[in-house]
Amino acid sequence: MMYSILDWKPKIGILGGGQLGWMMILEGRRFPFTFYVLESDKSAPACKIADKCFSPEQYKEFVDSSDIVTFEFEHVYDKALEYAEESGKLLPKLNTVELKRERYKEKIFYKEHNLPTPRFFIANDGEEALKILKEEFNGVGVLKESRGGYDGKGQYFIKSDIEKYEFLKNKKEKFVVEEYVNFDFEASVIVVRDKKGIIANYPPTFNYNEKGILVYNYGPYYNQEIVNIGKKLSEELDYIGTMGVEVFVVNGKVLINEFAPRVHNTGHYTLDGAFISQFEQHLRAIVGIELGSTSIISPSGMVNILGTDRVPHEVLRYGKIYWYSKAEVRKRRKMGHINVVGNNLEEVKQKIDKIIELIYPNGLDL
Amino acid sequence: MMYSILDWKPKIGILGGGQLGWMMILEGRRFPFTFYVLESDKSAPACKIADKCFSPEQYKEFVDSSDIVTFEFEHVYDKALEYAEESGKLLPKLNTVELKRERYKEKIFYKEHNLPTPRFFIANDGEEALKILKEEFNGVGVLKESRGGYDGKGQYFIKSDIEKYEFLKNKKEKFVVEEYVNFDFEASVIVVRDKKGIIANYPPTFNYNEKGILVYNYGPYYNQEIVNIGKKLSEELDYIGTMGVEVFVVNGKVLINEFAPRVHNTGHYTLDGAFISQFEQHLRAIVGIELGSTSIISPSGMVNILGTDRVPHEVLRYGKIYWYSKAEVRKRRKMGHINVVGNNLEEVKQKIDKIIELIYPNGLDL
Repeated sequence: MMYSILDWKPKIGILGGGQLGWMMILEGRRFPFTFYVLESDKSAPACKIADKCFSPEQYKEFVDSSDIVTFEFEHVYDKALEYAEESGKLLPKLNTVELKRERYKEKIFYKEHNLPTPRFFIANDGEEALKILKEEFNGVGVLKESRGGYDGKGQYFIKSDIEKYEFLKNKKEKFVVEEYVNFDFEASVIVVRDKKGIIANYPPTFNYNEKGILVYNYGPYYNQEIVNIGKKLSEELDYIGTMGVEVFVVNGKVLINEFAPRVHNTGHYTLDGAFISQFEQHLRAIVGIELGSTSIISPSGMVNILGTDRVPHEVLRYGKIYWYSKAEVRKRRKMGHINVVGNNLEEVKQKIDKIIELIYPNGLDL
Repeated sequence: MMYSILDWKPKIGILGGGQLGWMMILEGRRFPFTFYVLESDKSAPACKIADKCFSPEQYKEFVDSSDIVTFEFEHVYDKALEYAEESGKLLPKLNTVELKRERYKEKIFYKEHNLPTPRFFIANDGEEALKILKEEFNGVGVLKESRGGYDGKGQYFIKSDIEKYEFLKNKKEKFVVEEYVNFDFEASVIVVRDKKGIIANYPPTFNYNEKGILVYNYGPYYNQEIVNIGKKLSEELDYIGTMGVEVFVVNGKVLINEFAPRVHNTGHYTLDGAFISQFEQHLRAIVGIELGSTSIISPSGMVNILGTDRVPHEVLRYGKIYWYSKAEVRKRRKMGHINVVGNNLEEVKQKIDKIIELIYPNGLDL
């Protein structure tokens, strides 16, 4: 181990230029690090503050210029991911991304490692998926396209209206057919694991999603079962870095919904509620610096700004803005978020409610 | 007042590219602001993360391109300051800078406004200064060159060795001759005042300076007299923005040492100890956004990294690094700082002591 933090000034390559990369760089600027980003859209948040932004075709140059390569988005840049893995620079490693490329592999992984998850079957195409749904779940459940799903994309929540989903018969890809979980609430935990295998976790949070997108979350919600599941998952994956694990809580039981092999939206609160954020921990883990404390210094939470750039000034009475300065507002798009802190969970939740009223005076339109 | 935070996306010009500007930009990146910096050294911390860095000769273009002009260093760029004031863009206004250009004006201001400060005389040159020191203070006191003093520059602490200072006789500039204050300790308060005249303050801190440079500080040190003095000063100056007011505490009495018309080194702890930092408050004040809370969320403090780039990894067990990435290490130069938080003042102080041992194993060399 080197004596001084300044003995190594690594160049860190980040795949993806979205807000997660942006916050990673903002946090990382306090260290002697250089940041490169690979991203097709030069106006993306992280590109604007990176030392250099590479286009996807320049992936070899990007990887060759970096000492360490990580990612803030796991669904694209396959060539870059693979080349970074071959070069021995990718952290976390490709095994975690592989699970996210195909949902069915993620579900099988949970099953094989005794990690509790909603009951599921794997279908080879849309037709089979509908058939399984009828036979095994009485026509009520969730169909998920195996590829490319995030923020609710490619997911179909089918209740008593299965006839509306006949069009899925034409889909020739794999599906996960899952039981519909009537959860009490959703929650998540942010886990960090370093190169020595030391694992730390922030306290879990209560999450509120709508149409597959996180709207707000807050904590701490101390639940050891969630923590144990998150830690076990990171260990079984031999994971290095920060990850987010989303769960359903139903009748006191915990079921994994999915994990994200990266810093996570439900961990944004750590920028203000904790001394060391999920972003700094990720950088510490991949660079090989001892992890910092994951204790919180205050009950805290977060509200996403979705699909709007109308943010009343009054919001700043209750929270702190993180505006991603994206070039264009689009429906459902994450434009920014507001972090809040409070003396207790009730105060945090009240501030969140106030902020939601102010940002979405006519209700959420997702 | 505009409805949305996004209705105005001001371009903010910062005079000076040091670490204070750097932290202002890092904090300001969360808002829809653009940042320009005026700085002769392109490798300066703030230049590296600004949207554009202008050279001093480009001061007109810099001011004309900015909607608001502020500064992180008040001792240079006179033309730019004056042109920004003429353009009606400078905040805080030039009156505050004028007091800092000439120490004797600052002292007279305190006297005229009944703000307690160490007893002083004004001398027209070095010879007169030495004469006053002998006659009024029995040869023991502090001689301060009236111009260009900061970080202990141009200050002479004379005890029983006045004969060593004969060389000052040749100095033809104004001096402040001040009593030597045998203070119990030093302290400071960070005050913010907005365009409506609303004043907020962080809790004061205990400060430890050596040879005119801040080494560490921590708080909260609740002392209403310090707060009142800081607020009064900001009001009398019709100040807009964040300022730091440094005081001596002696036998329970408070005397102003000096103020800084900008974000201040003793307010760096607010990046982690408070929800809203001194940097964000400064930006809110000059842009015209309602100030945020100045409550702290944790006892906290800061250690400066002075004149070295040897920072053992172990430091990160106790605190959070802010490394300014300056091109060159120089004696006494502020290279970075470490913020700490703790459950109480004792814990914060213990962490500070630990960090000082680690960074300065052979003692401070200033």
